[in-house]
Amino acid sequence: MKLKIGIIGAGRIGRLHAENIVTSIREVEVRSIADAYVNDNLRKWADSIGINRVYENHKEIIEDPDIDAVLICSPTDTHSQFIIEAARAGKHIFCEKPIDFDVKRIEEALDAVDVARVKLQIGFNRRFDHNFRRIKEHIENGKIGDIHIVKITSRDPVPPPIEYVKVSGGIFLDMTIHDFDMVRYLTSSEVVEVYAVGEALIDPSIRQYDDVDTAIVTLKFDNGAIGTIDNSRRAVYGYDQRVEVFGSKGCLITGNDKPNAVEMYGQDWVYSEKPKYFFLERYKQSYIDEIRSFINAIYEDREPEVTGLDGLKPVLIGQAAKKSLKTGMPIRVEVV
Amino acid sequence: MKLKIGIIGAGRIGRLHAENIVTSIREVEVRSIADAYVNDNLRKWADSIGINRVYENHKEIIEDPDIDAVLICSPTDTHSQFIIEAARAGKHIFCEKPIDFDVKRIEEALDAVDVARVKLQIGFNRRFDHNFRRIKEHIENGKIGDIHIVKITSRDPVPPPIEYVKVSGGIFLDMTIHDFDMVRYLTSSEVVEVYAVGEALIDPSIRQYDDVDTAIVTLKFDNGAIGTIDNSRRAVYGYDQRVEVFGSKGCLITGNDKPNAVEMYGQDWVYSEKPKYFFLERYKQSYIDEIRSFINAIYEDREPEVTGLDGLKPVLIGQAAKKSLKTGMPIRVEVV
Amino acid sequence: MKLKIGIIGAGRIGRLHAENIVTSIREVEVRSIADAYVNDNLRKWADSIGINRVYENHKEIIEDPDIDAVLICSPTDTHSQFIIEAARAGKHIFCEKPIDFDVKRIEEALDAVDVARVKLQIGFNRRFDHNFRRIKEHIENGKIGDIHIVKITSRDPVPPPIEYVKVSGGIFLDMTIHDFDMVRYLTSSEVVEVYAVGEALIDPSIRQYDDVDTAIVTLKFDNGAIGTIDNSRRAVYGYDQRVEVFGSKGCLITGNDKPNAVEMYGQDWVYSEKPKYFFLERYKQSYIDEIRSFINAIYEDREPEVTGLDGLKPVLIGQAAKKSLKTGMPIRVEVV
Amino acid sequence: MKLKIGIIGAGRIGRLHAENIVTSIREVEVRSIADAYVNDNLRKWADSIGINRVYENHKEIIEDPDIDAVLICSPTDTHSQFIIEAARAGKHIFCEKPIDFDVKRIEEALDAVDVARVKLQIGFNRRFDHNFRRIKEHIENGKIGDIHIVKITSRDPVPPPIEYVKVSGGIFLDMTIHDFDMVRYLTSSEVVEVYAVGEALIDPSIRQYDDVDTAIVTLKFDNGAIGTIDNSRRAVYGYDQRVEVFGSKGCLITGNDKPNAVEMYGQDWVYSEKPKYFFLERYKQSYIDEIRSFINAIYEDREPEVTGLDGLKPVLIGQAAKKSLKTGMPIRVEVV
Repeated sequence: MKLKIGIIGAGRIGRLHAENIVTSIREVEVRSIADAYVNDNLRKWADSIGINRVYENHKEIIEDPDIDAVLICSPTDTHSQFIIEAARAGKHIFCEKPIDFDVKRIEEALDAVDVARVKLQIGFNRRFDHNFRRIKEHIENGKIGDIHIVKITSRDPVPPPIEYVKVSGGIFLDMTIHDFDMVRYLTSSEVVEVYAVGEALIDPSIRQYDDVDTAIVTLKFDNGAIGTIDNSRRAVYGYDQRVEVFGSKGCLITGNDKPNAVEMYGQDWVYSEKPKYFFLERYKQSYIDEIRSFINAIYEDREPEVTGLDGLKPVLIGQAAKKSLKTGMPIRVEVV
Repeated sequence: MKLKIGIIGAGRIGRLHAENIVTSIREVEVRSIADAYVNDNLRKWADSIGINRVYENHKEIIEDPDIDAVLICSPTDTHSQFIIEAARAGKHIFCEKPIDFDVKRIEEALDAVDVARVKLQIGFNRRFDHNFRRIKEHIENGKIGDIHIVKITSRDPVPPPIEYVKVSGGIFLDMTIHDFDMVRYLTSSEVVEVYAVGEALIDPSIRQYDDVDTAIVTLKFDNGAIGTIDNSRRAVYGYDQRVEVFGSKGCLITGNDKPNAVEMYGQDWVYSEKPKYFFLERYKQSYIDEIRSFINAIYEDREPEVTGLDGLKPVLIGQAAKKSLKTGMPIRVEVV
Repeated sequence: MKLKIGIIGAGRIGRLHAENIVTSIREVEVRSIADAYVNDNLRKWADSIGINRVYENHKEIIEDPDIDAVLICSPTDTHSQFIIEAARAGKHIFCEKPIDFDVKRIEEALDAVDVARVKLQIGFNRRFDHNFRRIKEHIENGKIGDIHIVKITSRDPVPPPIEYVKVSGGIFLDMTIHDFDMVRYLTSSEVVEVYAVGEALIDPSIRQYDDVDTAIVTLKFDNGAIGTIDNSRRAVYGYDQRVEVFGSKGCLITGNDKPNAVEMYGQDWVYSEKPKYFFLERYKQSYIDEIRSFINAIYEDREPEVTGLDGLKPVLIGQAAKKSLKTGMPIRVEVV
Repeated sequence: MKLKIGIIGAGRIGRLHAENIVTSIREVEVRSIADAYVNDNLRKWADSIGINRVYENHKEIIEDPDIDAVLICSPTDTHSQFIIEAARAGKHIFCEKPIDFDVKRIEEALDAVDVARVKLQIGFNRRFDHNFRRIKEHIENGKIGDIHIVKITSRDPVPPPIEYVKVSGGIFLDMTIHDFDMVRYLTSSEVVEVYAVGEALIDPSIRQYDDVDTAIVTLKFDNGAIGTIDNSRRAVYGYDQRVEVFGSKGCLITGNDKPNAVEMYGQDWVYSEKPKYFFLERYKQSYIDEIRSFINAIYEDREPEVTGLDGLKPVLIGQAAKKSLKTGMPIRVEVV
């Protein structure tokens, strides 16, 4: 019998998961979707992919006894509350990142999950990306020995609207948070101290929201490794997502995915394609694979590949980075 | 209202098209599938993707008034007959390559299509590949000026079973035929003469079937360009599919797609991934896109992107190549 | 004591060898240089690099008892005669390619060398190139097993002046001859049959000299391997020199050398450098290394790395290619 | 008339410069060489490249009225003294980096140079490397707009002997100092603050000398840009020297130079070459070009391309990095 899923939040990411499940994860049924703003467009879309139940109130999903699991794709400030509600209703939970900006609320949510003994997976989809997963495999197979240096380059093609910047929690909590998760994933080690520098070089006006658009974060890990992450809100050549892990026996480097493998030799240059434009196309397959992994964790009754703790830790690192940027000092990451 | 499709032939490629339509081309309904050998496995698979009608006799599809179009995925020796039947029944037709090995039978089939004024698209899926399509675009945009030299490398990872070799029509009609189509597609020009050399270097036993497993074909085009295709039945490093077009103003080269972009720097070498293993994964998206293109040609009532003539021409080139290999002489390609 | 060398012919290549020896092969002394046209410019240049003896008559070098070896860098039609004279005088000989266009004269020259028991090395400098040498090493170490297919791309950045075309012997004897040598070097096998196609696509006027500027030559080797060479007189993006050897256990590919390793990511493309412009810079080091190898063959009293037979064979292949182009038929290569 | 040069210090780098001049910079004469330890080996070597005067006392060079310029290649602790002596004697000076570890002594040396109005060039040879120079050109031509982020990876293949570590001034002053110079060169901007993290991951015993073998330095520039440098004393795959400059209009990245362009496709991997092994081969041409540039500055009576201030600044940055590592705090770079 098919697992039945309800999706809370029908924005871009909620719809993406719905469509991915319908087309690619046929052992699951999307039974219902809820969104605070239901309109004809949403109903029509839901109908087109065969979702019959569209609710304004997410509780209709949480209280539906036929639902096995929920995907929480609503705004960040609802995540911890919805996790708690879903956990108490005995539903397995997939929740988009970040869980919350407030550590206490995250901990309450994780407690509720523990008590209810349901599965909780956090939406760090990049862990399922073919390039990063391959790097992880090589590390685990001992191909590069002990890790000495980790480097991540993560740059967006265009800055988000200023309205988003105001509420996003800042660059470290909305953008670098993916990289904080990635270094934990790749190194299997915890970040103990961060030092952040940053500037508003693309749009100085965001300085008024205590934010920057260009940043470098230096990291110390508990196993002695060190690392650096560099971010920019605007790489004119597209979405730049590279990782390098240097170890005692070698080095792993992944470049960007490109839309095609064509090189054009002309009179002045050899031309090749820019990286894939943005995260939806770049990480397309990873969004499918993370849900498949979540479904399998339920079927096989095992711990999800991205746990609640994995959701909490990057928030702690991000908050330390914010504090470092503000104070100009290296900051220890809070231990939980 | 959805276009209704019937699929004739439920082998690997017939099933692939069925699954692609179900998951990715939602504006079409796969109404029925027919195969000479229906068994439980087939029924179960059909059921799992929502195809309710499974027939032993393809006529049940061709005579079904609700069917708008058929995909002919049955063995090659049935293609021309099924095209004729489907055309007479007024169905649009997508037919796998090659149409036939017999030019006269191909011509009869194309005549039937002409008379019935239905759409016919041939399954040269590589025309829809992202790399080759990009090369075609650059050529059409004049990026490399006039074409002087075309080069194709096309090598399989493993030779087919000897049973297949016996009936496949030989390397030029089952393997190089894709490359013959590709050079026509890229150059928008016709091949007028071929010269083929070949050897049985991988498995000498295929010599008894007048076939080879390693071949080079030299081509002359009607616009003065020249070209070369090299084939091998076994590249130990995987599926090798490269194209190069050299012109008066530059050169276009496409390498292979790789499963990931990771490089591993070790004590002795820098290691990177081999090409994607074989055609189903390498050309995955092109199979979807060719059907989408066929569907659009029907909806928009325009000529398909791969016509009946495009199905005939590579067979003529392939037969000239066979004759060249046999005689050791360059052979003019028959004009139709 | 230093080996004493005389250089016959003070054109571009004669001067290049002189300068290379003076700067990089310090165990040798360039004692004298001869050229049919001695002027102030030549005397000044000779003086600047410390060559004190400049002659109009090459016999002054050949008859100089202090000379150990001569480099023959004069026009092709003098090569065989000068080889004979130098051999009879007991001098070791380095001779630029081709030895001659006339097979009989080549054979006479090789006979004279045999009789005199002097060393003769032919100037196929590309055998000493770092890329091709590495491919040869890998082949000899069995890295790709048996050779099945050899492919060479060899394209010049600009066509030679029409005056050169008239006397050069044609594209196969002045340009492809390097590639004919390369396939023999890489495969350690002989070419037994060739088929050539070609067109005058860049400058139709060269057709009046029975020449072409764009060509593809298909090759059969005596070990069963097959090959293809493609040439153009004008690649707008520079000097294009690539080799691919495909075998039963793998494939070796060398791309072009580039002036630097910089990639520029811009709004529209990723830009990288074109290949090095032309043969003097592309093969710079190989010119030094071939002379060093010749010198070592003398010091160590062993056979040079490029023998007289290596000078004869490519001429035979080139003549077969010319005949193939003219007749439109595959041509057996003459056996000597 | 040829410029006459004396070389002080006949260690590896002194001999390298001597040989480069003799073979490649023929408009200059190496008149003499001095070394505190003269032995037969040194005399023999000097003789072999035509240097007739070999002294134990560097003053014989400085006091020789025929000498126009000196190359100071002696141990670091002699540099500032020898600069002062040479300047007072009116000789132009090329001095290896670093000038000194003591800022006051550097300033005294620079003062002496100013007073004497002689040329002083510091041996930051990497500024003359083909890759980095190309990046600089693109930046100056506005290709990437304003600089936002600079990244340097600089890793050695093997750690130096522990004896060297004891006296080298530490990783930031013997290794990273090149990178500090490079960021100044590329950005045309000054480093105002640094933050350094580092560990002894390769050989813990160097901790006793207050040194590390793995380090990351974060940089703030006076134009608002930020940067990061990562170093390791041991990259098992060879010498890793990469630079990336990200700006408002694009990004420049240079990879490593490789010994050849061959790729080997095998059953398991695609293999390519590791970077060139170490600095002497990697930066071979840059050592020639820096001396040529110095000579030209003298002939053309213009400021050298690497000034005394360029020698001082990286020392100040290196000292700030040392202090940052020790204190765990970001440190302002001293302004001079």
